[in-house]
Order: sequence, then C-alpha cells, then structure tokens
Amino acid sequence: MAAMDPAQVVPGTVRRQRFLGAVDDPGAPVVLLGAPLDTTVSFRPGTRFGPARIRDVSDGLEDYSPYLDLDFSQVPFFDAGDVDLPFGDPETALAAIERAVASVVDRGQLPIILGGEHLLTLATVRAVRHRFPDLVVLQFDAHADLRDDYVGVRHSHATVMRRIGELIGFDRVFQLGIRSGTREEFAFGRVHSRFHPLQLLPALERILPQLAGRPIYLTIDIDVVDPGFAPGTGTPEPGGVTPGELLAAVHRLRELQVVAMDVVEVCPPQDASDITAILAAKVVREAILGFGSGRQ
Amino acid sequence: MAAMDPAQVVPGTVRRQRFLGAVDDPGAPVVLLGAPLDTTVSFRPGTRFGPARIRDVSDGLEDYSPYLDLDFSQVPFFDAGDVDLPFGDPETALAAIERAVASVVDRGQLPIILGGEHLLTLATVRAVRHRFPDLVVLQFDAHADLRDDYVGVRHSHATVMRRIGELIGFDRVFQLGIRSGTREEFAFGRVHSRFHPLQLLPALERILPQLAGRPIYLTIDIDVVDPGFAPGTGTPEPGGVTPGELLAAVHRLRELQVVAMDVVEVCPPQDASDITAILAAKVVREAILGFGSGRQ
Amino acid sequence: MAAMDPAQVVPGTVRRQRFLGAVDDPGAPVVLLGAPLDTTVSFRPGTRFGPARIRDVSDGLEDYSPYLDLDFSQVPFFDAGDVDLPFGDPETALAAIERAVASVVDRGQLPIILGGEHLLTLATVRAVRHRFPDLVVLQFDAHADLRDDYVGVRHSHATVMRRIGELIGFDRVFQLGIRSGTREEFAFGRVHSRFHPLQLLPALERILPQLAGRPIYLTIDIDVVDPGFAPGTGTPEPGGVTPGELLAAVHRLRELQVVAMDVVEVCPPQDASDITAILAAKVVREAILGFGSGRQ
Amino acid sequence: MAAMDPAQVVPGTVRRQRFLGAVDDPGAPVVLLGAPLDTTVSFRPGTRFGPARIRDVSDGLEDYSPYLDLDFSQVPFFDAGDVDLPFGDPETALAAIERAVASVVDRGQLPIILGGEHLLTLATVRAVRHRFPDLVVLQFDAHADLRDDYVGVRHSHATVMRRIGELIGFDRVFQLGIRSGTREEFAFGRVHSRFHPLQLLPALERILPQLAGRPIYLTIDIDVVDPGFAPGTGTPEPGGVTPGELLAAVHRLRELQVVAMDVVEVCPPQDASDITAILAAKVVREAILGFGSGRQ
Amino acid sequence: MAAMDPAQVVPGTVRRQRFLGAVDDPGAPVVLLGAPLDTTVSFRPGTRFGPARIRDVSDGLEDYSPYLDLDFSQVPFFDAGDVDLPFGDPETALAAIERAVASVVDRGQLPIILGGEHLLTLATVRAVRHRFPDLVVLQFDAHADLRDDYVGVRHSHATVMRRIGELIGFDRVFQLGIRSGTREEFAFGRVHSRFHPLQLLPALERILPQLAGRPIYLTIDIDVVDPGFAPGTGTPEPGGVTPGELLAAVHRLRELQVVAMDVVEVCPPQDASDITAILAAKVVREAILGFGSGRQ
Amino acid sequence: MAAMDPAQVVPGTVRRQRFLGAVDDPGAPVVLLGAPLDTTVSFRPGTRFGPARIRDVSDGLEDYSPYLDLDFSQVPFFDAGDVDLPFGDPETALAAIERAVASVVDRGQLPIILGGEHLLTLATVRAVRHRFPDLVVLQFDAHADLRDDYVGVRHSHATVMRRIGELIGFDRVFQLGIRSGTREEFAFGRVHSRFHPLQLLPALERILPQLAGRPIYLTIDIDVVDPGFAPGTGTPEPGGVTPGELLAAVHRLRELQVVAMDVVEVCPPQDASDITAILAAKVVREAILGFGSGRQ
Repeated sequence: MAAMDPAQVVPGTVRRQRFLGAVDDPGAPVVLLGAPLDTTVSFRPGTRFGPARIRDVSDGLEDYSPYLDLDFSQVPFFDAGDVDLPFGDPETALAAIERAVASVVDRGQLPIILGGEHLLTLATVRAVRHRFPDLVVLQFDAHADLRDDYVGVRHSHATVMRRIGELIGFDRVFQLGIRSGTREEFAFGRVHSRFHPLQLLPALERILPQLAGRPIYLTIDIDVVDPGFAPGTGTPEPGGVTPGELLAAVHRLRELQVVAMDVVEVCPPQDASDITAILAAKVVREAILGFGSGRQ
Repeated sequence: MAAMDPAQVVPGTVRRQRFLGAVDDPGAPVVLLGAPLDTTVSFRPGTRFGPARIRDVSDGLEDYSPYLDLDFSQVPFFDAGDVDLPFGDPETALAAIERAVASVVDRGQLPIILGGEHLLTLATVRAVRHRFPDLVVLQFDAHADLRDDYVGVRHSHATVMRRIGELIGFDRVFQLGIRSGTREEFAFGRVHSRFHPLQLLPALERILPQLAGRPIYLTIDIDVVDPGFAPGTGTPEPGGVTPGELLAAVHRLRELQVVAMDVVEVCPPQDASDITAILAAKVVREAILGFGSGRQ
Repeated sequence: MAAMDPAQVVPGTVRRQRFLGAVDDPGAPVVLLGAPLDTTVSFRPGTRFGPARIRDVSDGLEDYSPYLDLDFSQVPFFDAGDVDLPFGDPETALAAIERAVASVVDRGQLPIILGGEHLLTLATVRAVRHRFPDLVVLQFDAHADLRDDYVGVRHSHATVMRRIGELIGFDRVFQLGIRSGTREEFAFGRVHSRFHPLQLLPALERILPQLAGRPIYLTIDIDVVDPGFAPGTGTPEPGGVTPGELLAAVHRLRELQVVAMDVVEVCPPQDASDITAILAAKVVREAILGFGSGRQ
Repeated sequence: MAAMDPAQVVPGTVRRQRFLGAVDDPGAPVVLLGAPLDTTVSFRPGTRFGPARIRDVSDGLEDYSPYLDLDFSQVPFFDAGDVDLPFGDPETALAAIERAVASVVDRGQLPIILGGEHLLTLATVRAVRHRFPDLVVLQFDAHADLRDDYVGVRHSHATVMRRIGELIGFDRVFQLGIRSGTREEFAFGRVHSRFHPLQLLPALERILPQLAGRPIYLTIDIDVVDPGFAPGTGTPEPGGVTPGELLAAVHRLRELQVVAMDVVEVCPPQDASDITAILAAKVVREAILGFGSGRQ
Repeated sequence: MAAMDPAQVVPGTVRRQRFLGAVDDPGAPVVLLGAPLDTTVSFRPGTRFGPARIRDVSDGLEDYSPYLDLDFSQVPFFDAGDVDLPFGDPETALAAIERAVASVVDRGQLPIILGGEHLLTLATVRAVRHRFPDLVVLQFDAHADLRDDYVGVRHSHATVMRRIGELIGFDRVFQLGIRSGTREEFAFGRVHSRFHPLQLLPALERILPQLAGRPIYLTIDIDVVDPGFAPGTGTPEPGGVTPGELLAAVHRLRELQVVAMDVVEVCPPQDASDITAILAAKVVREAILGFGSGRQ
Repeated sequence: MAAMDPAQVVPGTVRRQRFLGAVDDPGAPVVLLGAPLDTTVSFRPGTRFGPARIRDVSDGLEDYSPYLDLDFSQVPFFDAGDVDLPFGDPETALAAIERAVASVVDRGQLPIILGGEHLLTLATVRAVRHRFPDLVVLQFDAHADLRDDYVGVRHSHATVMRRIGELIGFDRVFQLGIRSGTREEFAFGRVHSRFHPLQLLPALERILPQLAGRPIYLTIDIDVVDPGFAPGTGTPEPGGVTPGELLAAVHRLRELQVVAMDVVEVCPPQDASDITAILAAKVVREAILGFGSGRQ
C-alpha cells in the first residue's frame, strides 16, 4: 500500500526529517534528492550522513529569504528522500543515482541533489545531459578533482571533474575557487578546462557572459568555503571564501538558467556544532527559491 | 493530499528515519510514537532529540531477536512519528501527548512511546487508564520522581510518579531500581508506593505474582542502567544495572499483560557514540517483539 | 551567616568561577548578573549554561583592553552570580530576573546581564525602563524576533522584540544585523520598528545621531556574528559579521549613554572549543570598560 | 574586605559552583578542597579541571544517600575552593597544597581533597601525618605508582607511592586494585608494600583487621574503576572494578577511622558525558556522609 | 636510500607512533601489521583509523603484563606499519593484505593484524591457510557475519564468515559471543558452523578440547564487548561481555596453538575517550606476550 | 641495529605519520622537527599533541603549492620526528630542544619546528643564534608574551618574548598582530621592542625594509589567527586575522632570509574538526617551499 501520512492516523503527530517546508506534491517544480555516496573518500569519511543532517538542521532556518524576498509558498518543492545505495560497489551506486535524477529531469523538474561525496556528480551530470545535451558544468570547489586516477582508482571524488570533462568536453567545465591540487592537475586545468583558481566571485563575474543562455549544472563542493565556516568536510583546505561570498555567488546565478544543482562533501561527523550542514541548508534554500522561482 | 511514498515517485529512493522495520499499515498491532517533551529538565537538556535519534540508530540493529526467536515479520508495527509539541507550555504539550496516545489505545493497539522527559508518562498514563481503569504502573528508574514539587513546579520530571500515584493510587505504582532521591522521597515511597529500591531483576522476580493478570504500563527511565552503559541521559546516577539485566527484565515481562510502554530520558547531546540511543532501540525492539507477539 | 572568603579560612585557596577581575564590592559601578533562562528554545537547548561558561573562560583573557587602553583597576565591577530560576515556569522566571535587575538599576549601577535565551530581555527591559522611561532598545541580532507568537506561545525567544516594542513603542526599537525571519516579521519590522537588516556597523553609523543623548539598552544576540566565529548558539545563521565588526560596534557606542546591556543566546553544549563563550566574555570586558568608565 | 554573599546584594541570585549542599560555616567537621595539580602527566593532561567539574556536576545528585540513610543536614561540610597553584613549578605547588591541607587538619577537621593528578597525595600525606604520625595510606588504583623516577623526574604521578612509602614506611602503604605497572614496580610492591593487585573488595575484606583502629588516609585514583565507567582519566586501564564495587568499598571503610581522603586523576577533557566526574562526586558524597558522620 | 633512524641523525629525537615496545628487528617472532580497510561498512565508517589510533594509545600502557608475568623484553615484536590500500576498490585491497600477511607467515612469524573492518579477515585467513591447511578460525564477535550477500555485495564485513566458511569448511569455523544477526544467519550458523551464540567464556571452555592441537586463527571483533566498554565500533550491540571476560578468554587460549590473530572493527571517530582503542591495545599486548612467548 | 624501512620487509606497507612528502634523506636542505613541550600552559593544555596531529592531517593536503608554483620534489625536506622530553622538568626539556635544533642549524639546514607551547622558542632561538649572532626574531602572535614572570615562574609561554629580548636585545624583536596583554606588557613593548599591535600584514609591509638582508627567526603563534579559523589553541583571542592573511604574510617573507621558523600553540584536544592543525600544516608546507627553495 502507499505510505500513509501518520498525521492522519494519530492526531497531532508530525513525521520528522524532511527538508524544511517541503510539500507533499511529487509534481512540484523543484525536487530535493539525497545521494549519500561515501565510498572513495580516504581522509575523513562520513559524507553518507550529509543528506540526513542537512535536512535535520534545516528546521533551524526560516522558509523566507530576505535576500531574495521569496518564500517556499511561492516556490514549492518536493523532498524525494535518499537514493538507496549499496556499500562497497561504487558502479552500482552511480547507476542508481543516475536513474533517480534522470526520472526527475525527465519530468521537467529541477533536481537539487544533497551529497554525499563529489563522485556522485558524475552520475548526476550523466542524467541531466540526456535532456540538456549542451550542458555546461559550473564547479565551486577548493580542489581541482582533475586527477586521471587516485591510487589506481578512476572513479573517485579526486577524479570526478576529469571524468566529467571527458564526458561533456573540458571546454564546458568551469572551475572556480580551486586552491588545491597536484602540479599536474593545475597544469591540466589551465590547458583544458575553464580554470579560474584562487577566486570565486570575481571569477564568476568574468565568466557570466560565457554562461548566459546555456543550461547550467551547478556543483558546489562545500569545501570552497574556508574551514572556519565549513569544518564539516572531508578535506578542509584553509584559505577559502566566506559564507557571504558563496551566497552572493548563488544569488548572482539567479538570472541564468540553472537546470540542476548539487551540494556535496558535507561530512557531519566532522561538523562541530553543525555549522557546515546549516550553511549547506541555507545554500539549498536560496537555490530552491532563486533557481526554482518562475518554473511553475 | 495524502503523503506520497517517494519511492514511488523517484526510482530507487528510500525515505529515511523510521524505526527499523516499521510497516506502512496504521492498523498494525503495535504503534511507535515519539513524545519529544523537554521542558522541565534542569541539569542537562536534550531529551527532545531522543525519538529522532533512537530511530536513526535503529538501522544498526537487526529485525530479529535471537533472545526471543522472533522478528518483525511476525510482529508488524507502525511508526506514527512524533507528537507535535509547543515549547514553553508544558500543559498544552501534555494534552497533545494524551490525545495521541488515547487514539492508539482506543483502536486496541499497543502504544510504545519514545521520550522525551519522564513527565510525559503523566499524559500517557492518563490516556491508557481510560481503557484500562485497573492499570498498574511498573517503573524501572534510578530516581524516585516522588517529589511533591520541584523548585515550586508541580508538573516536572522529578514529580511525575507522585502525580501518577495521586491519579491511580500509590498501591498501583511499582518502583524498581531506585537509587537516588531525597530523604522525603524515600520515606514517602516506603510508606505509600510499591517501593523496591537498589535492585531491579531480583525485585521484579519478587513482585511478578502481584502483577500477574493485571494490565501493566511499563515505564523505563533509561537511567536505571549505569551511566557507563547509558551516559546519554539528563541525570546519570552511578551504580545502575547492566544492559543485560535490563533486557532480562523486559524479557521476563513477556508472560504478563503489558498494554503500553515508554522509554524515556534518552538525551542524545550527552550520548557519546550513541550507545544510549542504541540500547533504547534494542529495548524497543525486544518490547515490540515480546509484548506485541500474539496481539494480531 | 554571611559567606566567608575561603581564602581567609584555608591558606592559598581561591574561589573559582567569577568573571575575571570581579571585585568584592557590591557597590561597584558595574554589576554582572547571569540569567540562565532556557525554556522556550526549540532547536538546540543549552543557553542555561551560558553564564557559567562565559565566567569560566574569562580566565583566558587579560583584564586590560588594548583597544580602549583601560583595565579593571580603572573600572571595578561586581559579579552578582546568577538569578535562581525555576524550570518549566517562564513567567515566574521572568519576574525573578526583573526583580534582580531592578535592584541593580535602582542603586544607580550599570547592569550587564549574561544569558540565557533572548526572552530574558523582556524582563530586563521592564526593569530598566522604570528608571529610564525614555529608554531605547538597540538590538544586534541575526533574527528579527518579531513573531506575535511561536507555536502558540507568546513569551518566546522568537517573539521577544515584538513584546518589547509593544511595551516601549516600536519607534524606540532599533534592530541591526537581522538576516533571518518570516516574511511577516520582515514586513512588520520595515513598517513599525527601526529596522536595519543585513548590516551592522554601517547601519550603526547611520543611526548614531538618533541615539545620541538617549538612555540605551543594548541587547546583543551572539548569533549576529557568523557561525564560523560563534557556533555555540541555538539557531546559527550563516552570513553574519566578524568578531572584529562586533567589537568595533561596541566600541562605537562608548560615546553614547548605555545604561544596561545583555549578551544572550550563548549555548555551551554547541560551542566547540568554547570560542563563542570566549567571544562573549571579550565583548563583556569591552562593555564593562567602555560603558562603565566614568560612572564612578 | 570579606567576600559578600551576592544573594544578599541582588535578590534571587545564587553563587554557582560549590559542591552540592556545602554550608557557609568554615568550622564544619568536613572540609572539601580542590588541588588542581596537573604538571607531570604525559599521556592525557587535564586533571587541573577536575575539581571544578566535580563541583559542577554534583548539582545532578541528591544530598541524601539511600545507602547510608544520611544527608548533608546531618553532616555539614565546608567547600574551601581550590588551592592556587603556579604552573611549571611542581615543588612550589606541592608546598602550597601541603600548607592548605595542614591548616584543615590542624583545626581537627576531615579534609577531602579533589584532584588533580596523583602526585598531590605526596603533599597531602605530608600534611596529615604531622597530626597522625602513625598514619597508614590506603590506595585504590589501577597503577602501582611505585617507579623510582619517571623519565628522570622523581616527583611524578608515576612515582608518588614510592615517595610516600619512603616517607611513612612501605609497611604502612596498602595498595589495592593495581593492574598495571612495570615488572620492577610489581616486584617492588610484592616485597615492600602491602600489595594486593588485581582485586579491590575481596582484598579490602582481607586487610580490614590490619586497618582497624589506625588513622587512615584513603587515596582513590578514579582509574581503579574500569574505563567503561570512568573514561575521564589520564591513563585508562581496561579491566577495572564497577562503580558499585567502589561504592561498596567506601561504605565498608565507614567503621574505620578515615582521617583524610582524596579522589584524584579525574580528567574532564576526556570525560565524555561527564560520567567520571559524576562518579567522583557520588564517591565524595558517600565519603562526606560516611566518614564525617559522628565527627561533630 | 634506506630509511634512517632519526634518532641517529638528530640527538634526542624519537620516531612516534609505533606500538609500545616494538623492536627494530624485522625478524622478531611476532609481527604487528595494520590493515586499515574501511569500504563496506554502512552504519558508522572510520575503522580505517583503527591501526593508527591503537598504536597511539598503546603509549598509555606498560610493556609488562601482571596477568601473564611477561614483558616485551621476553617476547620481542616488530611493528611493520600499515598495508597501503586503495579506496573504492575492495578486491585490490584484499589482495594487498593477503600478500603482506603471507610474507609474514612464510617467514615463520606470528602475524597480529590491526583492523580495519572485518572483511579483512577473508584476506588474512587466505594468507595463513597456505602454511596451515588445517587451520581453524575462532571468532569472538557480536554479529554472525554469515549473510550470503549484503545489499547485493558478496564481499562485506557482514558476509565475511560466510566466505571464510566456504573457503575452509564451516566445520572449522567456531563462532562465539554472537548476539545479533538475521533469522537466516542464526539458522545457518546453527546448522553449518560451530555456532555458540550469547556466550563467550563458558562456550570457550566447552570447545577447548576441540581446538587442542590445531592451528588457530583468532579473529576478535571488538564489538563482542559491550558498547559501554567498547563504544568505538561501527555497529555497537548492547548486551556484550566485559573487558575482563575478553582478557580471560585470550589468556585461556595461551595453552593452544594460535598461529595468527586479528583485532578488528575499532572505529576511532566513535571512540569517546579512546577507551575502545586502549582496550584493543591491551588485548594486543596480552596476545603478543601470551601467544608469542616460546616462539623464539 | 639501524631502523629498517618496513616497506622493505613487508611488501606494500608504509610507515605512517610523517609529514606529507618527507624524504628519507637526513641531509635534505629543510628539516622538520617536533617539540611537544606543554608544561607551563595554565588555561587549556594539550600542545604536546600538536606535532603528531599536524603530521597526521598533512595527508589531506597536496605536495604542490598553487600560490608559489612549487612542490616538494623541488624542495626536499627530512622529518626528524619529535624531541623526546621529560614532563615536569621544563629546564631539561628546553636544553634537549636546544641541542636538537643546534644539530640541524650546524649542518647548514633550515629547521622548521612544530610546537608545543611557545616557551620552546626560547630554546630554539638560543640554538639558532650561535650560528647567526645577528639574528632578528619576527613574531606573529595574539599575545605579547612580555611578562617578566607568570605566577612566579620566569620560564613560561607568557614570558618567552621577554626572555628572548633579554637574550638578543629587544630592538631585534619584532612583534606583530598582538591584541592581548597586560597594561604593563603593552607599555613595555611600546618602549622596548619593535611593537606593532592589532595588525599583521600592514605592519609587516611597514617593517620589511628593516628586515631586509638580516637572518630572521620567524615564530608563528597560531593564535594570531582568529579563533573562528584556529580554535585549537590554548588561549584563543577573538579578533584575529584570517588564514588568507597569515598565508599572505608567509609568502611575503619569501624574498627575505628566514633561517629558522616555528609554528606553536596548536592544541589538538581543543581543535574541533582539526582545522587548526590543517592550517598549521598548510603554513608549514608554504614555509618549506617558500623558505627552502634555492637552499639546495
């Protein structure tokens, strides 16, 4: 049988752990989806707990954005839960994520994916480009993720942008904020991708004309923010942007055509006081309101 | 509209945070219900997070009890979520809990309530005794909870058994394992209630004949267990029982008629490594299987 | 009998946990007072531990401000301990706080209150305006706190500025730094109060002429600071000011007539590494030296 | 001037952080005293925070012992605060502790010292034996502490019982519960001290006749308890006793003449959920009531 | 060039993080080896940090066992560091572990492996049985680990004993202490393996005659111990044995022929106060001394 | 015998816990050395764990600096481990540190020292000035460290710059970023040392001409950074610089002659999510590459 709303069964009850303000309508213009992939991270595991924790802490936010003067009554969204993933079998997991996101995109909805490790973006980009063949990928990240392999493994959170570039062409991959990588990754990025290291907002301003009018997949690795504001991540890299700068960058994209988005690498076991999960939840709220507005 | 099962909307997804193995059937013989009351605790707050955390960690258990040789396919149960409670208004909160539990009991189902602070038991006992007027209350606890008031407040987790005794008669209140209280509480308990301090299993063996054939409300304050095994509670009291002894006591009650039950005072912010929540979840599993078996 | 100084009884001993540098003179021009109210917070409780923890960590500071070139030998203050509060009874607690603060104000001393949740400011403003009927309230905060009720409760940390505005007139309520609230709160603030969202120091500069010469109650919700610097609070909101900006704002007020002040919503259980409590302690030191100087 | 009771200055206030139930009378028969020595510990420092934390958590206990049927109204005690100690100069610190304890003993009061690292016992035994030249020392501990030096240092928590034996004679040193040490320490203990390794309560029963009628200094290193119950200590050693066994041992000593006592090596930074500090506080309560009863 | 001992280069230096007391002789009769496999754990990852943390905390122990009256000068051992493993590729990792252990066994040394997740035992048993074809495996564990697959994956810490049984015959697999599993696992174990659930030491006593004279691989999943004593593990299961019972079981095996051993599933991110790692380190010390004695 | 590389003994193994990228060549131009001194800190101990933790987390970084376009293949360095120190005997410890650093400097190598508390800089400066008699000391710090004594102790982390100034002359001591101290320290600094409080990068720009051509000892107290970015330190002081500003300051010194350096006061027990240790590790990487480049 279909799931019952327990509030209809027992008076006064509420089912917990959906993102703040999610509606029950699976046809809403925006769909939130968790992808708790956490297989190839070596340094500090735990991104598998990201989606659940981001939802938990979203309760501490409001459903209104004073930055955008919009609230969730104006942009309804559905929280589809998490993709069910096996452990120890990354390929099967990637396929499951791809199927789930494809089903959202194919219905014309805007998917917002909660990670999980960055490798998931390979699956989600695969899903989205079926509908948007001329997709560009816009990455906010501390790390280049351009290795060809990592300790012999080709599908890894350290190689994901290399695989995506191979899939869609590196001239469609815009990398902003990068402040860590091997010499080879930086050399590769400078030659092949649209590589804008050590900056976020100023770089975004420069490339906005190149993005205009194109379908954009936005992937935000939360470690683009400085560890002082986002300690809860697998490979914190000092010297990042502030939350204010990240929010401003998201707001700046509102005028463009973002067709899918993810926020990845939130790692709750490392997230003292949950401030990284709360930051991710706020970014997601702004994205739902900013990118979802006008899609109904 | 009714809540949709997201697994039907997006392929491969799973909605998180229900107790392990819960079925979608609201008519199941056992109903799990959270009551995140957390208002009158002075020392270490946080029991409001108990129900959610117990559900989270239940995923680490199996659905089979090797002690009882039973599993959830034999005893289906429904997880009704949490009662929605206001903060700063204990009376309204108690009334909401009472209404929710009454709706379960009135349908002939066995309610198992996840706390929240111990004061909630006043509401749940009120709800249950409407259907079972000759109810007895069996308390496993480190604290007597027999104060007449606590810093001037009459409805408190430190006074709850006093209020319950006034409601149903102290001769129907069996208190086991008590190892902390004021001189007045111990004196009161020895005179009025069925008071068996400083012991759990041996005392239970002694009183089993008095409990036989009567409808029992079992209230387990997790602090009956020693803080070494159950650190995640508001007022840990050294010198308690082991998890093995608590599980044995629950198993021992299987032959009796337990008509409702709660597990209270699990306080996740204090629960290093979640071991208290996991213990509570295991007690709940044994209770569902042990008390729910044969009710269908 | 009166409390003895144990250092007079046992040689070499020191009584712990007073704010750094407090004197034994109850007639000192500044009086520090804790108000560990923590009843209406829903998301992350624990502000009840704020006063004690702020005192504890004050030991890591010096008694000299290089910003003001002043030290505690120039501005003596008395630490009056905490107001004793019942749990589960907010009205009685508010009355006790009001009485305590009134006794300080009535002796002509400057009270500095350590919270505790923001609701306490309703009590303290009541106490202070008896002596300063033309009081204005200056709020540094991430949240508007302008709800009319919160889940049906009218006295809540989410409604406190609404109640204060009703008490003293919204044209006497200056709200700076606000970056979170419902659509209704923002609409209400823009119409009724002196509402300056999304900014702190620039807004303060603009309103300084309006504040000049008037008795000011300064209420600092520590969450006005970004969670990266102040994670230890109940509802962290990304995108806040830096400690430097908050300290500069406090210093800027030195030329005005601050007659009472509080620092609220420090929540030690969430305060990894105590950095929020230390920030609050430093703000308190600067406030004692900056506002207390010249009052003797 | 003498310290004022702030409750007399500001209505409704309470000075925090005294051990639960302490009276203001410096002439009470029992005196509690903190000695936050923490200089020679190599593995996990932090015992300096022990006295403050034990006092903090004592608020979670009751002032009545159901084991002894005694409460603090029957056995009043004074909390003299902490001895003020320099850091980086152990000899000066030991001298300060000795002076403070001597002043208590010389007034005929029973001192109960809260540590701090075990080295402090050298100072306190020195202080006590001036009044009780035939003092015996009874040690409950996981470690022999019989090294002659530790990394070249002779005054260390690893050598303290060696120094005490040299001071009072090893035939007056009773060591119970020892389950860790070098081969040399075990060999030395077996030859020189009253050495009863790998047991607590059974060994105590055996030696009770030897202790009868003699003035006893009881030193409890909290690590005698298993790390499951007492994780908050510098060098946890698996395989220890339960809290129940430690409490029983303390109760067993009630019939003897305990003239001074300490509880040492509680290390709050390692004490998840404060359960070690709470256990220490309960031991202190039982000791005040058990050893102080009948001294007035 | 070969690694230099830094102590020969810079006077007074010491290389950190070797297990306490390890010698520089790679030909020592016992070899310690870390296998930080952590790929298939779903619930709480982090066992990859186990080997490093066990070594770190070993510094808090002594090199002498008072239980065995042996020390490391009598049983020298070499600490060979950790096997270097790829992430996201379990098969390659298992092969690397097998090679490393085989090289130890082939030199006639006793390998003691520090995990890492339990799946590693499949690799180590493979390595050991080449030299000992009639190997029996003795498992101390809370979980049966007898699933045929886990979420579709056949090589998992939940299936490892099934794979081992298939490899060496289930009649050579002795499973003790099991208190968690599916109905199917318990049914399978009762029929096929030497299955002794819900007990450790009593079961060991019963099977000792069956083990006598046979080469034994001992695998200790630390979760056989109750979570109160061993919280730092992936799937804590309440109701386990005490540290004392585990140590007694290890000591009991001393008279038998243990030819290889592992301690697995220590998960430092969950290990408040490091008590699980310390327990594992103590077990390893007793195993080195107990099983290595007489091998030189 | 000499230490063997375990990778030569057991195939595929790796010795853990060296700083990322260290080579086996003890004659490398840069030598990393830990000095886990932690004796005189009163507020929050734990810097003894700094060197080990900085090495641990260095694995999360890359060996390439995109800021300097240099990697460790261009600037090899040797990690000499930690100086072995006694506890409770600061003078002996300082002498051991001095000997170790002197051996590095005397071979013409650049020592980079990982603390440990700031007092160690007294020993390291002593060692370095033998070879560089005209040494200047450049301090980045929140605290002046100019006390003449601290609670009667002259060798303390609070007096270290006073002692160094006495040793080399205060006109050779440049103090930047200072935002905390007593009135006396600030007065002393303004008169005697090169004192530039409340600023880092702007002050550095001003003094660069004075530093040009002179041998520089750079001492970085990590608390110069704001506690939001560097919570893991003994005495956090709000209002500090950002990681970006500290890195820029280090980069700015590249054109000067830095002959030795330390990073001190990293305190892992206070370092939620390890972000302070990671920041220190990144500073060390930039220093190795920036100061070591061109020394071969």
